Amino acid sequence: MELTPDWIVGFTDGEGCFFVGVQKHPEMTAGFQVLPEFVVVQHERDIQILYALKRFFGCGVVRRNHGDRFAYRVRKLECLERVIQFFEKHPLKTKKNVDFRKFRRIVMMMREGRHLDKDGLIEILSMARTMNTGQRPKLEEVLKLLKAG
Amino acid sequence: MELTPDWIVGFTDGEGCFFVGVQKHPEMTAGFQVLPEFVVVQHERDIQILYALKRFFGCGVVRRNHGDRFAYRVRKLECLERVIQFFEKHPLKTKKNVDFRKFRRIVMMMREGRHLDKDGLIEILSMARTMNTGQRPKLEEVLKLLKAG
Repeated sequence: MELTPDWIVGFTDGEGCFFVGVQKHPEMTAGFQVLPEFVVVQHERDIQILYALKRFFGCGVVRRNHGDRFAYRVRKLECLERVIQFFEKHPLKTKKNVDFRKFRRIVMMMREGRHLDKDGLIEILSMARTMNTGQRPKLEEVLKLLKAG
Repeated sequence: MELTPDWIVGFTDGEGCFFVGVQKHPEMTAGFQVLPEFVVVQHERDIQILYALKRFFGCGVVRRNHGDRFAYRVRKLECLERVIQFFEKHPLKTKKNVDFRKFRRIVMMMREGRHLDKDGLIEILSMARTMNTGQRPKLEEVLKLLKAG
């Protein structure tokens, strides 16, 4: 299956997600690890779409998400940069583009190593909490901890 | 906002729905009315996408769906035919294309007036029950009634 840039933009406007997770990591200076990812989830009947996305971007992985749903997931920074370059050249048309721009900013900050100190991490997570639905209780908790510590 | 055909295909692969409803209608010979529709639902923050689709197809309506969600909805047969022609020329890439082909068949049968007699109606609803998730208790009930009567 051959995907075109415009199709990928339309499909991502519908199904794509730019997500920034956070998890405890005692070896990191600030105690937490930032995990930005680009994800597209589909029912297994459309797994071939996920593999086509993987071929298109030339990186990322297709794995079972949960139940009968699979995900194309990009986590490596160099692959995320490829994805980011694509959506800079071919902008999303929905408000998901607002999330994309925050996501890009966060990945850029990580390239500069800003996530490695507390102030940068607070800035990153404060931006991440305003992305997607904005319902991020775990992230709020980490932010509170960081600001208190 | 300018939409391209490929973007519309990708977005519909993600967010579009080809749905065939049925409702009681005492004035119809078979007692029931078939209601095919093409629908795209979005959160109100992306209502401009729905209006752009309406402009692109030159017909259909944008209305509140429920809560903070709005829908672009095409129900008129002549407008559905325009939508169908578009997706014949620019095929969907996901398995939604299977639903689309059933939908097209149903709209063609309606053009031939096949929904007006009981046998045609049974054929149409038997096809509709296999579309989308396939969870259609009301439709199953109507089919049982028609086959018994």
